[in-house]
Amino acid sequence: MDINEIAKLAGVSRATVSRYLNDGYVSKEKRELISRVINETGYVPSQQARTLRTGKTKLVGVIIPKINSHSVSRMVAGITKVLGQNGYQVLLANTDNDEKVEVDYLNLFAERNKVDGIILIATVFTHAHHKALDSLNIPVVILGQRLDGHSCVYQDDYHAVYDLTRSILKTSHTPGYIGVYEKDVAAGRERHRAFVDACTSKGVAVSPKAQQSATFSVDSGYLCAEKILDAVPDVDALVCATDDIAFGAMTCLREYGKRIPEDVQVTGVGDSKLSKIMTPSLTTVHFYYLTSGVEAAKMLVDAMTDGDGVPRELRMGYEIYARTSSR
Amino acid sequence: MDINEIAKLAGVSRATVSRYLNDGYVSKEKRELISRVINETGYVPSQQARTLRTGKTKLVGVIIPKINSHSVSRMVAGITKVLGQNGYQVLLANTDNDEKVEVDYLNLFAERNKVDGIILIATVFTHAHHKALDSLNIPVVILGQRLDGHSCVYQDDYHAVYDLTRSILKTSHTPGYIGVYEKDVAAGRERHRAFVDACTSKGVAVSPKAQQSATFSVDSGYLCAEKILDAVPDVDALVCATDDIAFGAMTCLREYGKRIPEDVQVTGVGDSKLSKIMTPSLTTVHFYYLTSGVEAAKMLVDAMTDGDGVPRELRMGYEIYARTSSR
Repeated sequence: MDINEIAKLAGVSRATVSRYLNDGYVSKEKRELISRVINETGYVPSQQARTLRTGKTKLVGVIIPKINSHSVSRMVAGITKVLGQNGYQVLLANTDNDEKVEVDYLNLFAERNKVDGIILIATVFTHAHHKALDSLNIPVVILGQRLDGHSCVYQDDYHAVYDLTRSILKTSHTPGYIGVYEKDVAAGRERHRAFVDACTSKGVAVSPKAQQSATFSVDSGYLCAEKILDAVPDVDALVCATDDIAFGAMTCLREYGKRIPEDVQVTGVGDSKLSKIMTPSLTTVHFYYLTSGVEAAKMLVDAMTDGDGVPRELRMGYEIYARTSSR
Repeated sequence: MDINEIAKLAGVSRATVSRYLNDGYVSKEKRELISRVINETGYVPSQQARTLRTGKTKLVGVIIPKINSHSVSRMVAGITKVLGQNGYQVLLANTDNDEKVEVDYLNLFAERNKVDGIILIATVFTHAHHKALDSLNIPVVILGQRLDGHSCVYQDDYHAVYDLTRSILKTSHTPGYIGVYEKDVAAGRERHRAFVDACTSKGVAVSPKAQQSATFSVDSGYLCAEKILDAVPDVDALVCATDDIAFGAMTCLREYGKRIPEDVQVTGVGDSKLSKIMTPSLTTVHFYYLTSGVEAAKMLVDAMTDGDGVPRELRMGYEIYARTSSR
């Protein structure tokens, strides 16, 4: 079954069927004739033929920093839902936090006729990122970081960790912090800045030895907690930049004979699925990852269909989930 | 900098540079001239131009059932490593366990000039899968399931769960099983069959009410454990088809006041990163996911470069990790 046969069965011209398939003008009467034939025959227009006709691929490229991540999977779920509803398929490119690979995929997707738009779940921006982003001739939405001059959807990392730290400081007086590298503005710099500001606002001074930088892993959280415990044995709270880091810190605290939360309060960020089933359950920040994916995809669909080229910035709200790892 | 300028600087013809870039024959002398110019100028041939010249995209499509999964991320890490070393970029398509979407992506990747080969991390095979797989004109390797007539790399699910169940039955006499749906031959049918066979081999009869089918989630593991505890209150072991299901079962057992492993032993499959940091730590099966990804990618690279079209089947070994959730 092809476009010629549809035309024949419907008693209209091939050009009319083509206009019908590509959302061009077709009279109501002919529209019904064609629609009936298509429903009866189960005809599905080939995507490749459609691309040749319209110059659109109906594909969106999504660049992600890693695949085994609660937050990334929630964002991708939201993205996929909206794009699917709008007839787009999604190709994911996993960079494993390699900045160079990220730029390579930006360039790959930007090649003519690969995809109609890009969502970049971003971590850091190098000079090469700026260059690649500025030279794109298809719409892009950045998710998870704010970047001047580009449409983006991001979490309110600063206020979330500020509020969380303030609540911890009601009962703790010697807090420590385990963060991630500050080249990641959202998870690294903003969360750390929020911790420091919250401590300052309460008149609490924190020794540099009680502030460590981890990678995003459980093991690294363990090692950083150990460093802090060795340097500041009376530490009574560990604010962690991610849930995984907090899980590692909790394992370390247990091995040092510290009770959670009686001796040391622990908090994470992300509300991962295990944060509520760990013992004790983890006090953490809930970000609306799924909804932020939905919003980023809506922003991209708008830009791909009738884009005015105006960059938009959307900052998402958050919630603090107080559980049993804090008092 | 383009191919004409390279030719000019090296003092050779444009055709010679083109042969050089596409691994055709070039004399040693000219090869050195061109190589020097390329090194000095930092010229990188455009992938698009290369595709036009060679008919190869240097892209591989990898279809995955979900992105927030320990096993999938390990397999993808192995795949990406080998393909990267061989100059391929990887596009991931996430199906969220939707069989229809899986077939859609098989067809998308199979379109002319999209990718040079496909790795399908498979869960179930419908009639539509068979049809799509049989009509592919590019190499495909199936990872995680065995399928007649196709190259595949898969885990030894049967013997792993058989051994694990036998070891549990040394001290338990009323075991239960929480599996996943049997349309998934590897994780569903084979693991369940192994449990049943191991019980039979020890002369242990297991009531159907002590065998429940979950989805792949923690919450579903919780609900199935509850059903088993209500129907068979003296159950003294829960063999679970995945680590996530086991985590849910453990949470449920704790709420029912059961001690793990004294009252009920619990086991999982997968050796996820949290299995060793849970309290108690989880006895589980370690599959060589990363290595199986490496092997699948090697198989695909061979098929893409000098494929003889002969299907190969590779079954991977396993290890049982006995931890504190069993006796």
